[in-house]
Amino acid sequence: MAASKCTRLTGELSRRFLTSVDTVLFDCDGVLWRGDEAVTGAPELVNELKLKGKRVFYLTNNSTKTRDMYAEKLRRLGFRAEPGEVFGTAYCTAVYLRDTARLQGKVYLIGGQALSRELEEAGIPHLGSGPDPVTGGFKDWAGVGKDPDVRAVVVGFDEHFNYMKLNRALQYLQDPACLFIATNTDTRLPLEGGRAVPGTGCLVRAVETTAHRQAQVIGKPTPFLYNCVVKECGLEPSRTVMVGDRLDTDIQMGSTCGIRTLLTLTGFSSLEDAKSFQDSGSLSMVPDYYVDSVADLLPALRELPQ
Amino acid sequence: MAASKCTRLTGELSRRFLTSVDTVLFDCDGVLWRGDEAVTGAPELVNELKLKGKRVFYLTNNSTKTRDMYAEKLRRLGFRAEPGEVFGTAYCTAVYLRDTARLQGKVYLIGGQALSRELEEAGIPHLGSGPDPVTGGFKDWAGVGKDPDVRAVVVGFDEHFNYMKLNRALQYLQDPACLFIATNTDTRLPLEGGRAVPGTGCLVRAVETTAHRQAQVIGKPTPFLYNCVVKECGLEPSRTVMVGDRLDTDIQMGSTCGIRTLLTLTGFSSLEDAKSFQDSGSLSMVPDYYVDSVADLLPALRELPQ
Repeated sequence: MAASKCTRLTGELSRRFLTSVDTVLFDCDGVLWRGDEAVTGAPELVNELKLKGKRVFYLTNNSTKTRDMYAEKLRRLGFRAEPGEVFGTAYCTAVYLRDTARLQGKVYLIGGQALSRELEEAGIPHLGSGPDPVTGGFKDWAGVGKDPDVRAVVVGFDEHFNYMKLNRALQYLQDPACLFIATNTDTRLPLEGGRAVPGTGCLVRAVETTAHRQAQVIGKPTPFLYNCVVKECGLEPSRTVMVGDRLDTDIQMGSTCGIRTLLTLTGFSSLEDAKSFQDSGSLSMVPDYYVDSVADLLPALRELPQ
Repeated sequence: MAASKCTRLTGELSRRFLTSVDTVLFDCDGVLWRGDEAVTGAPELVNELKLKGKRVFYLTNNSTKTRDMYAEKLRRLGFRAEPGEVFGTAYCTAVYLRDTARLQGKVYLIGGQALSRELEEAGIPHLGSGPDPVTGGFKDWAGVGKDPDVRAVVVGFDEHFNYMKLNRALQYLQDPACLFIATNTDTRLPLEGGRAVPGTGCLVRAVETTAHRQAQVIGKPTPFLYNCVVKECGLEPSRTVMVGDRLDTDIQMGSTCGIRTLLTLTGFSSLEDAKSFQDSGSLSMVPDYYVDSVADLLPALRELPQ
């Protein structure tokens, strides 16, 4: 649709763009909020989109919140939001196991409360959540008790990740029939002030390294979150846009799914990053459009008829 | 030296081979012992090599034992051994930091008691060994206290590895001037009966993934252990052989160092593995010679003059 890539959305172009869009898929962190503060003007934009009859969905790689918890945070920050609009990796991992893999058996879970709750909600039995202190030595670890009903290992964010959990994952994954699922492969969780802590991707790589296998990834840049939206809610790809702050996840996923992409510069990736992907020919990580902030779309949006 | 690769050492060929060798570099686990039992005939072979005036060194990627602890285990299993003949990654990491990197400052250590002791022995101040329970949340982790004197992160085997240690490593490694050293990248520690537990390589990959950097690796297949032997004890490469059970570490290192290589089939790699590397042209992982067990060399060795 875009004649040239990486075009700044302003003025008349914004109006034409917004007119051509029915469905907006938002990444959250770095796009709608940073840490615990909404991006200025972002709630007004989202609420105005809805007033103008656009559909809004929230697509996040974060596995530490359920749909309900996400909707609650969105509302607390001023966004109109329903749990059914949230497609996070905690929820979508449960959907994958139930509907795509049709898992018969239990999950060994490296992950937190939110993942645990979404699995429960989907009726998927699981074990492993919470602390798992390391004791004993090599022989004890190799002979650690295994639940014979486990048929999948799921790796999401888990602050209790340790050698014992890594070892249990290996013991299960030595069976080639055991599924191996990762919520996402983000290497860091960015926080305010340029700070960061390790992301789920590190845990996934550790398990992949010992298992000599690659995980099936639920989160962006794979198309699974998008496919969940399509399946549950339907959408017209030519009238849909993915809005994100990361070229390697949000924009890449939008390109893979054949929808338009919009980079916002309030988060992880910079315009220079996008230009350098453009120069190197990695066009799937170059957005169709960019804005300094999603709030920049508000004036054009307000000019559209109801 | 070998006209064709991957030749079985028997009879007259064994005698000529042993006559052409002054120095034998042995990997230990899977070569001289398995778990806590010596490979049958291996102590006799090593002791006879020494009686015949050959020099023997022990090169191991294992970072969980000091030189003293290794020499003690060797002697307990019947091998004649001195601490000065042991070149393990705990000792050699300390040597690297002291003599190669000439580290001014402290080490943040992900590793166990043996690494800690070898660092101490080399006069290198360090912190981090032992349990480090995770507490708090994202902001606490990003703002975790850092020792301003830390100039290197070292990752070795650490059963207390967890999210907190991964996070501390990231906080230090965000400074590009901070060195990043890994004892080895073995993905599993093999145990008896085909069992295995996760190896140091998994911990290294987790840290590399979050740090967006690659570790400098001390262990095989890099030539550093070999270079330590050369520097401390001297050797004539054309009269030296590396004996190991792993193609990707022992044999690869021997090839890199330009010495002859001998695969023993009592451990990790099989003859089929070697043949398939040969067929695919990965010749640096194909040994010059192989034996079913190092003990197979004993008859030929006994025929040599004192």
